[in-house]
Amino acid sequence: MAARSLRRANPITLVLSLVLFLGFLIFLLTPSHAPPSSPKPKARTSSSSSAPPVIHYYLNNLTTSSTPIENREQVLLLTPLARFYDAYWANLLKLDYPHDLIELGFIVPKTRDGNTALAKLEDAVRRVQTGAKKNRFAGVTIIRQDFDTPVPQSEKERHALSAQKARRAAMSRARNSLLYTTLGPATAWVLWLDADIVETPHTLIQDLARHDRAVIVPNCFQRYVEKGIKKIRPYDFNSWHDSEAALKMAAKMGADEIILEGYEEMATWRSLMAFEWAEGGDPHMETALDGVGGTALLVKAEVHRDGAMFPPFAFYHLIETEGFAKMARRLGHQPYGLPNYLVYHYNE
Amino acid sequence: MAARSLRRANPITLVLSLVLFLGFLIFLLTPSHAPPSSPKPKARTSSSSSAPPVIHYYLNNLTTSSTPIENREQVLLLTPLARFYDAYWANLLKLDYPHDLIELGFIVPKTRDGNTALAKLEDAVRRVQTGAKKNRFAGVTIIRQDFDTPVPQSEKERHALSAQKARRAAMSRARNSLLYTTLGPATAWVLWLDADIVETPHTLIQDLARHDRAVIVPNCFQRYVEKGIKKIRPYDFNSWHDSEAALKMAAKMGADEIILEGYEEMATWRSLMAFEWAEGGDPHMETALDGVGGTALLVKAEVHRDGAMFPPFAFYHLIETEGFAKMARRLGHQPYGLPNYLVYHYNE
Repeated sequence: MAARSLRRANPITLVLSLVLFLGFLIFLLTPSHAPPSSPKPKARTSSSSSAPPVIHYYLNNLTTSSTPIENREQVLLLTPLARFYDAYWANLLKLDYPHDLIELGFIVPKTRDGNTALAKLEDAVRRVQTGAKKNRFAGVTIIRQDFDTPVPQSEKERHALSAQKARRAAMSRARNSLLYTTLGPATAWVLWLDADIVETPHTLIQDLARHDRAVIVPNCFQRYVEKGIKKIRPYDFNSWHDSEAALKMAAKMGADEIILEGYEEMATWRSLMAFEWAEGGDPHMETALDGVGGTALLVKAEVHRDGAMFPPFAFYHLIETEGFAKMARRLGHQPYGLPNYLVYHYNE
Repeated sequence: MAARSLRRANPITLVLSLVLFLGFLIFLLTPSHAPPSSPKPKARTSSSSSAPPVIHYYLNNLTTSSTPIENREQVLLLTPLARFYDAYWANLLKLDYPHDLIELGFIVPKTRDGNTALAKLEDAVRRVQTGAKKNRFAGVTIIRQDFDTPVPQSEKERHALSAQKARRAAMSRARNSLLYTTLGPATAWVLWLDADIVETPHTLIQDLARHDRAVIVPNCFQRYVEKGIKKIRPYDFNSWHDSEAALKMAAKMGADEIILEGYEEMATWRSLMAFEWAEGGDPHMETALDGVGGTALLVKAEVHRDGAMFPPFAFYHLIETEGFAKMARRLGHQPYGLPNYLVYHYNE
């Protein structure tokens, strides 16, 4: 019947059908989705049909404000991912900052655990990026690390003082590689979110951004059950105010030695944000910090652009996120923390 | 006659013509040139026609070798550009590394001179990117600086010891901003080339790359005429081997003080690569360096990815490119110089 009506159609109808069909083909063939890098709304692109485009970026037109959604500010959400936790992913999907303003970036180590994590991550990404439009992210970049990480360890081994320096140096290099291959000219904010952060308020990004700080860190806790009662306890001890004792300790150290927090062998007497949490306290109360943790951490892109990175070496006897805080301060950016704004770490 | 033959044509011929015409349209409309970011031959892209793509990068598949052309290694050529010199541009165009493997990045200050330079640069870029295919670059990014630079100064003022720290701190921030917004996952090498470098061998990139060093710097000279005789003299004094005197000087300095090279007031007794040039000497003779200049400087992208940047603050009492060399060393990358391989600085 279809063949019959086609045979009966006059040439004009036939041509029109073909035009429509080919128009549809053009529609299919022309990449209408975002370019691989990211949407760059602040960029002015001038290109001829034959030459590669010239792209201008006006960094001073890029806002990083306390009202990021209204200003359509792009967020680069970065996660060094050694293991894939379903709860991490579920929490990420629930972030209600517009997903078309969020680019995701992951760096996965070249370990067996990394392979497993990568497979799960790819699967999860595929599902969200082919699902409902409003849930899709602006772009996803997955980087496979090109250097070895110290062998993945148990929670206990991982925290041993002796293993910390090598572990955190490797983590710094992973963070830097991830950051500096994904940071684009249109990125306004960078949200660091560790792969084992399994619960945050869904308004995490706008809640932190509203403080309009160069570097801001929530308080990272952990849920646990004791004698059948649900409780919470501090988890990340890298957000702190410096102490005379720690500064004196540093002054006596060799160039490559580092101070680490949370070890009996090394009493720093720093005051830790972890212990400043007050039940029922104002979640938006700020405190200026000298060191920051990176389990969840919001940074204005300009801070990273200026060169503040995660030192994989002793920087003022500090390393990784704590060294980053020092570097940010050296660049004139004061880090802040929110003692009563909690995010939760996976409980192994 | 044409109209007549068209009228005579049977429907099949008409349809075929239309198919050809529309095929041509598809060809015109489908962006066949490189995406705005860059060609990324090492990336595996998986995308559905409707979702933003997921991009995987395997950093360990990225080679950075002594035979970069054979391995199709991408070069990011970066220039902080305050003034536009025709000779700089002419020299750039003559670089005979395949242009489709070179991405250009510029950062232009928000000064009046910057406006003039930008206009000239845009014009020059437009010409090359719409000209002969083999001359076109893979991509061009122009960034307008979002912070102020110390007022552009005369050559004499610019070199005054007192003005150097502020000037070089601003230059560091410009370099970092440019680098960390343009460095992509497929970048193998970063070539820093100052806007006042007006003459280099056309094989600059492959000549430097062939040494397979993490950081390598040629010797920056200047041409001049004395009593009618053409001569050359050393220009950049930032490439050096450290000295006991400089290290002792640093040990006595306050945390924010920096050592600068080439000033009578501050005799460092470092040995400068500038004075190691020997007429007729082997241009490929290497020397290990502690400090490097940035007028022309080739860096493996992994060094910058690891976090080695241009410190805008005193880093071991060093700043900018010299601080970068120290940071590269802290990250385990030894910088090298080529005393007999010359590039030339504009003579004001």
